[in-house]
Amino acid sequence: MRLLDESSVEDLAVGAAILGTGGGGDPYIGKLMAVDAIKECGPVELVDPHEVPDEALIIPTAMMGAPTVLVEKLPGGGEVFQTFKALERRLGRKAYATISAEAGGVNSTIPIAVAARLRIPLVDADGMGRAFPEIQMVTFHLHGISATPMAMADEKGNSVLLDTVDDFWTERISRAVTIVMGGSSLISLYPMYGRDVKEAAVHGTITLAERIGRAVRESLREKRSPVQEVLKLTRGYELFKGKIVDVERRTVAGFARGEAVFEGLEEYKGSILKIRFQNENLVAIRDGEIVASVPDLITVLEVETGLPVTTEGLRYGYRTVVIGMPCNEKWRTEEALKVVGPKYFGYDIDYIPIEERMKG
Amino acid sequence: MRLLDESSVEDLAVGAAILGTGGGGDPYIGKLMAVDAIKECGPVELVDPHEVPDEALIIPTAMMGAPTVLVEKLPGGGEVFQTFKALERRLGRKAYATISAEAGGVNSTIPIAVAARLRIPLVDADGMGRAFPEIQMVTFHLHGISATPMAMADEKGNSVLLDTVDDFWTERISRAVTIVMGGSSLISLYPMYGRDVKEAAVHGTITLAERIGRAVRESLREKRSPVQEVLKLTRGYELFKGKIVDVERRTVAGFARGEAVFEGLEEYKGSILKIRFQNENLVAIRDGEIVASVPDLITVLEVETGLPVTTEGLRYGYRTVVIGMPCNEKWRTEEALKVVGPKYFGYDIDYIPIEERMKG
Repeated sequence: MRLLDESSVEDLAVGAAILGTGGGGDPYIGKLMAVDAIKECGPVELVDPHEVPDEALIIPTAMMGAPTVLVEKLPGGGEVFQTFKALERRLGRKAYATISAEAGGVNSTIPIAVAARLRIPLVDADGMGRAFPEIQMVTFHLHGISATPMAMADEKGNSVLLDTVDDFWTERISRAVTIVMGGSSLISLYPMYGRDVKEAAVHGTITLAERIGRAVRESLREKRSPVQEVLKLTRGYELFKGKIVDVERRTVAGFARGEAVFEGLEEYKGSILKIRFQNENLVAIRDGEIVASVPDLITVLEVETGLPVTTEGLRYGYRTVVIGMPCNEKWRTEEALKVVGPKYFGYDIDYIPIEERMKG
Repeated sequence: MRLLDESSVEDLAVGAAILGTGGGGDPYIGKLMAVDAIKECGPVELVDPHEVPDEALIIPTAMMGAPTVLVEKLPGGGEVFQTFKALERRLGRKAYATISAEAGGVNSTIPIAVAARLRIPLVDADGMGRAFPEIQMVTFHLHGISATPMAMADEKGNSVLLDTVDDFWTERISRAVTIVMGGSSLISLYPMYGRDVKEAAVHGTITLAERIGRAVRESLREKRSPVQEVLKLTRGYELFKGKIVDVERRTVAGFARGEAVFEGLEEYKGSILKIRFQNENLVAIRDGEIVASVPDLITVLEVETGLPVTTEGLRYGYRTVVIGMPCNEKWRTEEALKVVGPKYFGYDIDYIPIEERMKG
């Protein structure tokens, strides 16, 4: 156990957005939410999964929706507590802790705000080790944990409680509700036991995010390359250095879908990189050849600062470094690739781990 | 109090479909559901609103969705009990009785099936005295009763519990969920007290529906005009006699919308009548002139049998009588017309009660 304070949160929000591969929300908004909560209620206990009692109830908290919408709808935050409490009532018991469903600028910090305000611990883990766009795309699902009962709420005061026959139905119904709620909602879902967290979660994500964020900050102060620090901590690869020359983005069926085009700089001069995204970056294609794909992580960083650019933040003229990072091993099984592999997202290619692609 | 048996249900399903103005579901399906339940569990106690204790909990039960879809998805019925029980659990008490939300071939009989299987009474009343397409279009809403908590379920086993800030949000969210569930869902909503039923409901609808259905059946046996019997019981008017020559129908945003065109027969020869509908018939236009509009009732009857034709049942070549009937007085206030008047449905006309139109 250790305490997360305001400065931890500053670093963590940046690092989590880097792991968020373009999705999971804006780190600035995420930071505000968590810092406010810690200022009011004090630092948050971060517990290792192995410190959680086997029978303890753990409830993940998150925001659902298209990140383009999140930017316009800074959530009051009250709604997420409401969903957490609704699940506690539904299950007839108090939760021991909360946990992130995914890594991301907002989705790593919402659980911190919940933990601070409810004075409960946060578990140092998440359900992806990155961000993904759909409800069933968590390691919890791979381990047979049900997404429901799931509670949803919006900033107007509407709330919804779901019980479904499987996680795909949860995705369909909660997506339709999120769209009607204005494009984003606050959610509590995948209630689980301590022993589930030990088996099914990706461990250590909060600490990793904090280390990544701190490395970026310190390297900037010390005039070292922040990108190299990120690559070291994530065992990642530089895929491209380029200027954004085109961004096509539309909200379809509740998702921010689109493509960004990068024109090569320095050693990449004359090359073109394209990234296709659905909330999160899905594939990176350099001069017509795929250089990285889901479930591996693809993140766009500002060249000077090393700060992550979310899919909603992609703008013409940004000078960026695009990096690829290996995903957690849980995503690399045949079963997992059915849930989050390139084919699920409509790309008729086999998944090749980024380490292998980089060898070739 | 009196008992509803199988033969009551046969008549009632027909009469309710006549009051259903084209919506509220198919009387044949409705009859099957309720007759099955009565066969298994015995007749249902029908209680007058004034017999209900003021503090008793009453939960309306219904089906939501486009009637075109209902025809294809004969519900198992189990789902509606599940929603009823979910509301009881949510409210922490047992319900005294159920009640219809609207009159209609299915929506008048679902509550009978619920009453039979749960061995509780059915209240002789409903929330419209007819059928309307949207959640907030009930007299309960006019009297300030909230549609939520509302429980929804589908035949696959998915269920949803809603708490919203107003009935318009309930409509939006539950409509989105119904569409995802496949176009129809089973629902329990507008939980209320006995005293609310006394004040806010349209009284006597079940008995009226049964009388209408019985009159149609008996007039056919005695070779009298069934249509005249219906007009007498509903203080209605014959608007047209004609053959259906065109039906345009599409499912939009979860509603069956469209237009039917009738070519005049007998004294109407040379005339054309058009009916526009959204699940229910909304306006009847004869030779370019409006002859009836919401909230008054417009129903299409088969010329020989007097049996009602629902909007999903409209077919080329049917020989029909179109009738108009005055709505309940609760719908004729300025406030009520904002909720169910022609302007709400996109027709820029003032509501003129059918009695006045028929005088001119």
